[in-house]
Amino acid sequence: MELTVYLAGEIHSNWREELKEKAKSLKLPLHFVGPMENHDRSDFIGEEILGEQPNAIFRDEAASRINNFRTQILMQKSDIVIALFGEKYKQWNTAMDASAAITLGKPLIIIRPENLHHPLKELSNKATVTVETVNQALKVLAYIFDEK
Amino acid sequence: MELTVYLAGEIHSNWREELKEKAKSLKLPLHFVGPMENHDRSDFIGEEILGEQPNAIFRDEAASRINNFRTQILMQKSDIVIALFGEKYKQWNTAMDASAAITLGKPLIIIRPENLHHPLKELSNKATVTVETVNQALKVLAYIFDEK
Amino acid sequence: MELTVYLAGEIHSNWREELKEKAKSLKLPLHFVGPMENHDRSDFIGEEILGEQPNAIFRDEAASRINNFRTQILMQKSDIVIALFGEKYKQWNTAMDASAAITLGKPLIIIRPENLHHPLKELSNKATVTVETVNQALKVLAYIFDEK
Amino acid sequence: MELTVYLAGEIHSNWREELKEKAKSLKLPLHFVGPMENHDRSDFIGEEILGEQPNAIFRDEAASRINNFRTQILMQKSDIVIALFGEKYKQWNTAMDASAAITLGKPLIIIRPENLHHPLKELSNKATVTVETVNQALKVLAYIFDEK
Amino acid sequence: MELTVYLAGEIHSNWREELKEKAKSLKLPLHFVGPMENHDRSDFIGEEILGEQPNAIFRDEAASRINNFRTQILMQKSDIVIALFGEKYKQWNTAMDASAAITLGKPLIIIRPENLHHPLKELSNKATVTVETVNQALKVLAYIFDEK
Amino acid sequence: MELTVYLAGEIHSNWREELKEKAKSLKLPLHFVGPMENHDRSDFIGEEILGEQPNAIFRDEAASRINNFRTQILMQKSDIVIALFGEKYKQWNTAMDASAAITLGKPLIIIRPENLHHPLKELSNKATVTVETVNQALKVLAYIFDEK
Amino acid sequence: MELTVYLAGEIHSNWREELKEKAKSLKLPLHFVGPMENHDRSDFIGEEILGEQPNAIFRDEAASRINNFRTQILMQKSDIVIALFGEKYKQWNTAMDASAAITLGKPLIIIRPENLHHPLKELSNKATVTVETVNQALKVLAYIFDEK
Amino acid sequence: MELTVYLAGEIHSNWREELKEKAKSLKLPLHFVGPMENHDRSDFIGEEILGEQPNAIFRDEAASRINNFRTQILMQKSDIVIALFGEKYKQWNTAMDASAAITLGKPLIIIRPENLHHPLKELSNKATVTVETVNQALKVLAYIFDEK
Repeated sequence: MELTVYLAGEIHSNWREELKEKAKSLKLPLHFVGPMENHDRSDFIGEEILGEQPNAIFRDEAASRINNFRTQILMQKSDIVIALFGEKYKQWNTAMDASAAITLGKPLIIIRPENLHHPLKELSNKATVTVETVNQALKVLAYIFDEK
Repeated sequence: MELTVYLAGEIHSNWREELKEKAKSLKLPLHFVGPMENHDRSDFIGEEILGEQPNAIFRDEAASRINNFRTQILMQKSDIVIALFGEKYKQWNTAMDASAAITLGKPLIIIRPENLHHPLKELSNKATVTVETVNQALKVLAYIFDEK
Repeated sequence: MELTVYLAGEIHSNWREELKEKAKSLKLPLHFVGPMENHDRSDFIGEEILGEQPNAIFRDEAASRINNFRTQILMQKSDIVIALFGEKYKQWNTAMDASAAITLGKPLIIIRPENLHHPLKELSNKATVTVETVNQALKVLAYIFDEK
Repeated sequence: MELTVYLAGEIHSNWREELKEKAKSLKLPLHFVGPMENHDRSDFIGEEILGEQPNAIFRDEAASRINNFRTQILMQKSDIVIALFGEKYKQWNTAMDASAAITLGKPLIIIRPENLHHPLKELSNKATVTVETVNQALKVLAYIFDEK
Repeated sequence: MELTVYLAGEIHSNWREELKEKAKSLKLPLHFVGPMENHDRSDFIGEEILGEQPNAIFRDEAASRINNFRTQILMQKSDIVIALFGEKYKQWNTAMDASAAITLGKPLIIIRPENLHHPLKELSNKATVTVETVNQALKVLAYIFDEK
Repeated sequence: MELTVYLAGEIHSNWREELKEKAKSLKLPLHFVGPMENHDRSDFIGEEILGEQPNAIFRDEAASRINNFRTQILMQKSDIVIALFGEKYKQWNTAMDASAAITLGKPLIIIRPENLHHPLKELSNKATVTVETVNQALKVLAYIFDEK
Repeated sequence: MELTVYLAGEIHSNWREELKEKAKSLKLPLHFVGPMENHDRSDFIGEEILGEQPNAIFRDEAASRINNFRTQILMQKSDIVIALFGEKYKQWNTAMDASAAITLGKPLIIIRPENLHHPLKELSNKATVTVETVNQALKVLAYIFDEK
Repeated sequence: MELTVYLAGEIHSNWREELKEKAKSLKLPLHFVGPMENHDRSDFIGEEILGEQPNAIFRDEAASRINNFRTQILMQKSDIVIALFGEKYKQWNTAMDASAAITLGKPLIIIRPENLHHPLKELSNKATVTVETVNQALKVLAYIFDEK
């Protein structure tokens, strides 16, 4: 039984690599997917495919359609969603993906530093599990396969 | 045909009152519901009902359960969700409610200032309609009932 | 038991008025809803509410979001969908609404002239009932309430 | 992770072959399915299997049941739907398949020439992505698998 | 709280009248709906509305579409389904309605004489309750509203 | 907006009366429903309606079908479920109703004495809110309607 | 793409073997499942596993639970359902399985002799395709995989 | 066709091993999953991953989230759920898992000693099959794959 895990959240740090490597070293039967991690490409994918747009809002509109297309497919294929919230940025995409996972009945792990507990309290309460580090999230994933 | 509208988003300004009054003056058959607007009561509702909690995290946990209970009921009763994003705060609750509305197949209007278009681009693309002012949202609501 | 009926399809003829009047004269407990019937207003509703758009495609995009918002709400409130196909125009909106009704499990009546049977054959087969005139559709609606 | 893509739309041009070959040359893990592409066989499949029918309408009825059977199975097996609209024909089947995909929550790419933007505006707005060429659709598919 | 009850099954006896009168005399807040009880009208409703059909099979096809339209609407409006099986006829419509009720998650009472227990064993097992008389079915309905 | 609340759990104490009276004194727009509270009648309802059964197991089987029929209808009509766990009895029915509510997406309040926290930990975690007294449950209900 | 086909209906003839052999000779990628074909074992499976039951009704009840368990699993695993109706017997199980397939959105082929068209008219109308012979059903299955 | 079976219920006896070994000796194509069987680890998994908690209630809360995460994933992957009830303990988790399986439409086998028939009567009635021994459950599983 291999499980697919969608990794939502910030693309400015290497947390996905850390998680993938640890899962690999533990030989966990997990397959990871996620958003485009090249931030510029993600922002300009609309114009890359559809050509120049009239202004910044329409460039964003074009890019968001293609990013949403990717996320919808990969999240539908996933058994588990992990959403990491960091200190910076609005991260409304991360909240959107986390809430979609909950509403679709997909098990959700939120990773967030303790000092974000207050603004995340309702979302965190609806998540299946909330942890503070990537390592803790890995332990939660590993626990699925333990028998003793 | 009366429609129920859930008003998600910031509770620091009087945008709900503005919307309700304008809808009333147009005699639109709309019924509005939303979160607890008293910010302190919302934060302390867990301790108000369940008594003192061990620390801030558990106070948040207790409050969030009761706020989520309220939101779940009222959103399930709603035909339309409006989510307003402002300049301040994390507003992850607002993003959570907006994404839940989309995933549940409920029509969603996002109200946000133009300068937030970039961080909201994916969420805004999944919304049914995005506008910049409360007045524009009202016009979208009024349009449902116009025949000519 | 009052039933709500969504009337999808062309807004260039007065078929909705014909149906409503006949239903009224038979005192059928039916409530009818449908799209904006003022064609120009439907096409320009995006600019009416959101202001001028960069070009025709974006004007269409803005209008379509608000028309889809209206249709989504009214169709979700409906117990029955009637879709009328005429001789002119692409009528892809009508096909879209008819197919959405089928997929949502809502009973669908298609009204179409006999000479359109070939291009509509797959959609018509998935519809609950296909008729050729507004009067026949009315008789199908009336049959719901007959006991003998 | 192999994805299955249903290709709805006109069967008079070779756009499916073009898409399949390009996907193959890029080694994308995609499997394509679609309707019967032999137009005559599609129209006469009812009589081919069930024998002669009383008239043209009933021949269409018999054919449409078997074509709908095929489409229902293949679309349910698909992760993505692509619908191509061309200049000719009513193409209500294409609109039906596109709307069914949207309503079922399947990601949808519409391919259409720019001059069809107006009659397709509501359907295109509900699609996940709209593009103008087969090549652009391929790039959207390829983007799912890119990491950088 | 008024409940709507769909009464599926034979239209050759007056069991619906018996049930309605008893429910009325007990002042139970129940509203009953069901199929066309005029057997000839049910069989010829296709030709009544659509005109003469080429042969008996197509007459049946036309009638069945309109009968299915009626059943779909009324069953969707119902909170409870009662299906009565008698000694005569194939009664595949009754089995179809009963199975649809179960699959839709609607509570189902089957009324059948004891000697039909064997051919109905799988369907009866999936029903919520199986009884032998209309009077027993009424008692099951009355029990919903009893507090002591 | 009146809300319907299903009250699952023990029928040996008068907690339902306490809750109903307090809700009434606060003029909350709530309508309460629940299981048969006469324990003997609940156990013998199968034989009351269907006549004597071969043995105790089949008497239980007959009663359980009719109790499940009642619960299914009333829970489907409810917006909120409250499940009270006491010190005595197996209370597997209560756990069954609570878990069904969660799985159906209905907001759930669990009332349980603190010393039951350990055996209820997984169920309580999946509930929307857990409280210790009927009075606390009432306050959670009242909070839905508070604006300040 | 291998498809799984559930074969509902009579177990007194060898129609399943005929279908399987023809599918095999055409090398169609189909996997067939169905009910227990040993009629006596199907009727006595309850007592075979659970021991003697008090009477014939309870023996049927015990058997039906286990047969329903088998059918539920295999039908959930199936992409297509075929239901064959013959001249003899009540065949309410077959109607139950056919209606469950329709309600679950699974494509359904009904095989029935022409003289059964009248009692099957509503069920046949809701089926995706109706044919008269096993050979015709096979041709419908084969058509799924044809490209020209 | 391999089926996955979730084994809910007590972790104090070796019934899972007994079932797995018997299934293996019969070469049934079954894959078994279930909860953490090390009772202490299950109770302390919250603190094992998240660190020390303020008190016993919060330790339970932390553990229950992670156990629920595991159960949700494995049950969603399962085709069949088996729930064993024994003489001891509250076993509300077992009732929760059984009820969730029923509500999700997953076939459920309950194993319980005969003397528990009364407190389990409603749950047992909603289960697909109820048996008394692990061996009987195995026979029910084996029956899925028998053809004669």
